[in-house]
Amino acid sequence: MINKNSPVGVFDSGIGGLTVAREIMRQIPNEKIIYFGDTARVPYGGKSRETITRYSRQIVRFLQAREVKVIVVACNTASAYALDEIEKETDIPMIGVVKPGARVAAATTVNGKVGVIGTEGTIGSSIYSRYIKKINPQVTVTGKACPLFTPLVEEGLWEDPVTDEIAKRYLAELLDIGIDTLILGCTHYPLIRSTVGRIMGEGVSLVNPAYETARELRRLLEEKSLLNDEEARLGDNRYRFYVSDAADKFKRFANSIIKYGILSAEIINIEEY
Amino acid sequence: MINKNSPVGVFDSGIGGLTVAREIMRQIPNEKIIYFGDTARVPYGGKSRETITRYSRQIVRFLQAREVKVIVVACNTASAYALDEIEKETDIPMIGVVKPGARVAAATTVNGKVGVIGTEGTIGSSIYSRYIKKINPQVTVTGKACPLFTPLVEEGLWEDPVTDEIAKRYLAELLDIGIDTLILGCTHYPLIRSTVGRIMGEGVSLVNPAYETARELRRLLEEKSLLNDEEARLGDNRYRFYVSDAADKFKRFANSIIKYGILSAEIINIEEY
Repeated sequence: MINKNSPVGVFDSGIGGLTVAREIMRQIPNEKIIYFGDTARVPYGGKSRETITRYSRQIVRFLQAREVKVIVVACNTASAYALDEIEKETDIPMIGVVKPGARVAAATTVNGKVGVIGTEGTIGSSIYSRYIKKINPQVTVTGKACPLFTPLVEEGLWEDPVTDEIAKRYLAELLDIGIDTLILGCTHYPLIRSTVGRIMGEGVSLVNPAYETARELRRLLEEKSLLNDEEARLGDNRYRFYVSDAADKFKRFANSIIKYGILSAEIINIEEY
Repeated sequence: MINKNSPVGVFDSGIGGLTVAREIMRQIPNEKIIYFGDTARVPYGGKSRETITRYSRQIVRFLQAREVKVIVVACNTASAYALDEIEKETDIPMIGVVKPGARVAAATTVNGKVGVIGTEGTIGSSIYSRYIKKINPQVTVTGKACPLFTPLVEEGLWEDPVTDEIAKRYLAELLDIGIDTLILGCTHYPLIRSTVGRIMGEGVSLVNPAYETARELRRLLEEKSLLNDEEARLGDNRYRFYVSDAADKFKRFANSIIKYGILSAEIINIEEY
């Protein structure tokens, strides 16, 4: 039986969505979380809409089997390509990371010039642009795919001259255009937020969709009277992690991001769902 | 019916195996090739033995359905993790890229110190070390995983200060050890061969398993009287490419590597095999 004390389901193509899970842990610490990272099929960034939708559908079935009360699509590419379709197929409320980020960017920009950085999939989909233009058609949105950021983050080069150099190249175009707001449109990017911020300068506001999504989730749970009201207790294992492959590597990375101590990550065969 | 004029099957996790296909085209231009790149599930480098074996088994079934006479596992990670198991399951002869590279490295080294660079999967498997030690137990083999090389190659930074800097960091340890032979243990690496060669210096011989594998394939086909004896004709479509996703991106990259002009790459659903 699904009720207010059921867990929140969070999924991503791999480890990036942990930045979203981390924000949920910070902002709504009472919630239980079931996290799924599709580490066998990561990355989603260069894959097609059809493939990403098929993968997302399997993951939603897996989370439903674990009786989650709400699903957070903590992956920009899956939010861009699959969310509209898969949310029609189930009764569980779903939120992605794109709409919350788009809304805040539209509210933040003063000069009407917004930039978005993300994977090839997210940028190619123009999803941020479409949402922002629905809110305010006057805003111009410029996207820039940054395929090397994710491997650089996964290699641990969060503060490094190489990451600086690559970021300078990727961001030059957005600096030239004179954007005043930049969306970190991939869940890995909050981890290189300070590098990106330094290059863009103080005049540019960075929008972190992970943060905005956790806020949105809180609002949604309040509105639906679904906020968890159990008392949190030490050692009650409120965060559970599942992956489709390579659990040790996931655990190492997760423990570098999340300070709660991830005891285990269970491998499941996602293709069975 | 499989006969000497049947095609050679070649597969890889994505585009890297095209460096092997290119060597086959150069060295045995009469052969037809069916290439499969698992672009939906790329990269294999960080995945587990079990997952890679399952993926490889599906691809072998796909290639068998296309009646190939021999299968070249043009992926170091799949050669390391899956080849031993899958070659037992079929009658079609199979060769991987690891054994030919290991053999040449063992024959090349003078000081008995060999280095291998590759993905985390290939290096973690210690497969090159095991093969080389079977040939000559006196040789010491040092492996170094270079996870950023593949994304750098795919981003087109074959000659670039960033690739130089990353290569210097990855290779420092192998330079300190004083290896005289270095195996390019990932099919992407021949494309940054000159960067790696410059850093290692003239005293270090680079072994390119793609080249050695094409030689080995030629020997195998000769030995089994399976060399194609049809006359090659212009426009007879002797090279066919299949991928599991994102055919356009594959075609763009393939055309930058192979000079024969890749007209089409067909998408198939590999999970059905």
